[in-house]
Amino acid sequence: MTGMADAYVVGVDFGTLSGRAVVVRVADGAELASAVHPYEHAVIEQRLPATGAPLPPDWALQLPADWVAVLRTAVPEAVAASGVDPADVVGIGTDFTACTVLPTTADGTPLCELAELHDRPHAYPKLWKHHSAQPHADRINALAAERGEAWLARYGGKISSEWEFAKALQVLEDDPEVYATMDRWVEAADWIIWQLCGRYVRNACTAGYKGIYQDGGYPSPEYLAALNPDFAGFVTDKLEHEIGQLGALAGGLSAQAAGWTGLPEGIAVAVGNVDAHVTAPAAQATEPGQMLMVMGTSTCHVMNSDQLGEVPGMCGVVDGGIVPGLYGYEAGQSGVGDIFAWHVDNFVPASYVEAAAARGIGIHEHLTELAAAQEVGAHGLVALDWHGGNRSVLVDHELSGVLVGTTLATRAEDVYRALLEATAFGTRTIVEAFETNGVGVTELVVAGGLLRNTFLMQLYSDVCRRPLSVIGSEQGPALGSAIHAAVAAGAYPDIHAAARAMGKVHRAVYVPDEERAAVYDALYAEYQRLHDYFGRGGNDVLHRLRAIRRTASKGEVA
Amino acid sequence: MTGMADAYVVGVDFGTLSGRAVVVRVADGAELASAVHPYEHAVIEQRLPATGAPLPPDWALQLPADWVAVLRTAVPEAVAASGVDPADVVGIGTDFTACTVLPTTADGTPLCELAELHDRPHAYPKLWKHHSAQPHADRINALAAERGEAWLARYGGKISSEWEFAKALQVLEDDPEVYATMDRWVEAADWIIWQLCGRYVRNACTAGYKGIYQDGGYPSPEYLAALNPDFAGFVTDKLEHEIGQLGALAGGLSAQAAGWTGLPEGIAVAVGNVDAHVTAPAAQATEPGQMLMVMGTSTCHVMNSDQLGEVPGMCGVVDGGIVPGLYGYEAGQSGVGDIFAWHVDNFVPASYVEAAAARGIGIHEHLTELAAAQEVGAHGLVALDWHGGNRSVLVDHELSGVLVGTTLATRAEDVYRALLEATAFGTRTIVEAFETNGVGVTELVVAGGLLRNTFLMQLYSDVCRRPLSVIGSEQGPALGSAIHAAVAAGAYPDIHAAARAMGKVHRAVYVPDEERAAVYDALYAEYQRLHDYFGRGGNDVLHRLRAIRRTASKGEVA
Repeated sequence: MTGMADAYVVGVDFGTLSGRAVVVRVADGAELASAVHPYEHAVIEQRLPATGAPLPPDWALQLPADWVAVLRTAVPEAVAASGVDPADVVGIGTDFTACTVLPTTADGTPLCELAELHDRPHAYPKLWKHHSAQPHADRINALAAERGEAWLARYGGKISSEWEFAKALQVLEDDPEVYATMDRWVEAADWIIWQLCGRYVRNACTAGYKGIYQDGGYPSPEYLAALNPDFAGFVTDKLEHEIGQLGALAGGLSAQAAGWTGLPEGIAVAVGNVDAHVTAPAAQATEPGQMLMVMGTSTCHVMNSDQLGEVPGMCGVVDGGIVPGLYGYEAGQSGVGDIFAWHVDNFVPASYVEAAAARGIGIHEHLTELAAAQEVGAHGLVALDWHGGNRSVLVDHELSGVLVGTTLATRAEDVYRALLEATAFGTRTIVEAFETNGVGVTELVVAGGLLRNTFLMQLYSDVCRRPLSVIGSEQGPALGSAIHAAVAAGAYPDIHAAARAMGKVHRAVYVPDEERAAVYDALYAEYQRLHDYFGRGGNDVLHRLRAIRRTASKGEVA
Repeated sequence: MTGMADAYVVGVDFGTLSGRAVVVRVADGAELASAVHPYEHAVIEQRLPATGAPLPPDWALQLPADWVAVLRTAVPEAVAASGVDPADVVGIGTDFTACTVLPTTADGTPLCELAELHDRPHAYPKLWKHHSAQPHADRINALAAERGEAWLARYGGKISSEWEFAKALQVLEDDPEVYATMDRWVEAADWIIWQLCGRYVRNACTAGYKGIYQDGGYPSPEYLAALNPDFAGFVTDKLEHEIGQLGALAGGLSAQAAGWTGLPEGIAVAVGNVDAHVTAPAAQATEPGQMLMVMGTSTCHVMNSDQLGEVPGMCGVVDGGIVPGLYGYEAGQSGVGDIFAWHVDNFVPASYVEAAAARGIGIHEHLTELAAAQEVGAHGLVALDWHGGNRSVLVDHELSGVLVGTTLATRAEDVYRALLEATAFGTRTIVEAFETNGVGVTELVVAGGLLRNTFLMQLYSDVCRRPLSVIGSEQGPALGSAIHAAVAAGAYPDIHAAARAMGKVHRAVYVPDEERAAVYDALYAEYQRLHDYFGRGGNDVLHRLRAIRRTASKGEVA
């Protein structure tokens, strides 16, 4: 770090419901203040605000103006609260949910902001959890498999309906006029940078993980034409653009954005990024083999490696996807904290809620204490954590949960513990898939809300037979964005160096207990057996049940 | 019926916690009045009342005096309430829990009533659910299998720890002095008859189902000696005795019992019987192929047949075990209503309980209504109903429950319905096991508390693809005992005739719906596949989980 002893950076994390700005000291990563601004329209799932017209099922939109409002409110609020002189701020970095993507004109104007298109749902940004492009994703995958497209293996064999191509194909086929009008199909992560510095650059992270950018190119026009003749030019006409490496300078803060944020015009604006991936430097987890697990409602695993491998069921491997010069891997567990919440909300009787209230603690805390009092294996249960499908390593969203071993003595805390364990077994399955495919994992680092559950953390350490490190910040993504800003501003030579100075991690906070780990090994062996039986074709009952359910829900007779 | 136009009989049902007497008209089975008397000492599981000494785990004792109190209170109360002149009562019949068994002197005095033995737990009657003789039952089964004892197949390959031999072997080995002192090892069902008429006669039902009496004999002295040399003479010295057929006259009411009951001395006392089996005539289900299902916390299936077959996993087949001249079959589901109750007690959140209360209905009724509103298969779930192990057809008490197909959208009523369905699938499995082994099932007749749930009844009819008849009395066992009394008194030539006149059934109240049945067929196919996978060695995870649980509960490391 040179000549920046009193310099500061701002990191902005654009989440699903709000944006958070944090002011960070470049020298040591100290977080001086933060501010949160909720999106006025949150997630648009029912009706288009402009017209009140109802949206079909599985739609999820957002408004670009809500994101800009974060720059206009949360950033100046955080700077004011920090006491820092805005003149001492040298850069700004951001991260976004992904894949959140929108159609724009050539100058970056969102189509939804054109008066003539404000009543067209497809003119709006599609939030990551817009899931109605599944039929399009299915066709993308079937055709890629059929044609043996090389890029498919880089995504564990499945392109998600959440990503750029499926969502774009949906626009083309559902509203060709909007498709024809759009000049650019832009990741929100890059659109916000475009607003900040006036320059459009696709970040290497989303271009790779969400945009099928591999080895310097995209899916071929021939492949796209086979999907739909009118889609043949999608890459050339709407998508292809300069790629920016993570931590690189996207440009200087524009006068307009300086006006919004109160920050000095011309300061460094870092290339865009994604919430989970940007957390890696915040947790000092950017070296090869350091697997960062962002544990919340779901878990996202990101890890760098100097080896290019094709790990079954990974979400993606992208050259420079986390830091330039290394292969960035991503894997995921689709249900973690939301499975625990589902159990608590739907299968815990009043007596537990009352007991927790009487003790002045939360119901999760109460159940965790009851579960923690048990010896490993005393509940006699094994569960499969597929209530939201399986992302890695099976990549099968049609799977569902399984619970084995209940007796009349089984209680709510027993099932709760079995579910905690199931997600830990899911993590061990992912770690082992990396290792057996030649991608070494040297350390597990945890970020995200679930790290507050110390019993769960110890359980993961015991199950995985590995020490667990935990991030030392409560705002990992925003801190990570600030670190990127510092690199873009030239305060550090690269992300690794910035992470060492500004990132925060407590190493090996949890270490495995040999006696517990031995019993967990036995339970994990049962998990694996059930995992393969229900997940790899031994018994396709979960698929058949879903088919029966679909038919039944239509009121038809199977 | 001859000369008994104004005659009455009394039936007494000795349950687990109380005895119930009912006064019934011989001509048409009209139930005029009934009275219940709870046992003062209920079930003795913690401490011996005489001394306060603690009992080991899995013990369950009763006091003979508590049973006699039923004769002294409930019988005269019922007669008084009926307005019947006691002089018009021509007979009394009883049924009992089984196998409930006690050691007595040669004159029938319970050993626990001898002053010198009142502090000896083994001197007391062992209630049916006294389960601490499991190690003895295990040895009985292992040795019988090893020696190829022919009688073993008559019990589906397993002698229960609840039955006469296992409990007697426990007495011998734990308290040889009590064993040496006892002259008779007497079923409570027969002991109460001994008290009523002064004559000891072993009823054909318990002798067969609980006493391993087959083809006119018991297990051989050689077999018994191989179990324990001191057990060689058990049959000859303690057990063997005259067998009385069901519905036969055991004797005339003794002066002492006439004093207790207020009934005329000398009236007919029927041979003893068992609660489930005696319900068959009460439900007019005594003809070959009529399967009576007594559905409560568990389900007991009893059925007559003119065919002797060896049905895998049946609890027993006994010549004359339900009515003389036919083979009586018994099968069972160890968990039915208690599984529903377990779910309601442990996995239903307050909002449901409050909604039920607000509507002024029970929680089971509320959940049933919510479940009933769904299309078949809409919950996407299949469960295995083994929370209390599997009695028929697998005879494996180490099995446990399985739930497959849960998603984050799964709610309490979905699981509730899946559990209802699982027990119906369990019934269909039993019915099919009978049919595929050459023992035809022509009709399903339901008795027991669960018949009040009309949705459950319709579900069973749909799943089994058979009409369902239901008993027309709310006190089936006591009515059945009264029917036996009428036969013993000579009012009818046999149990069938008495059942036709006095039994009560509504035929084919529920008939299967073809559309629902078709979807249930698909779910049942999944149940069967999981049943065989988890129950027949495809994956012994349930056994291994139980072993892990046992080790864990001892605080040991596996």
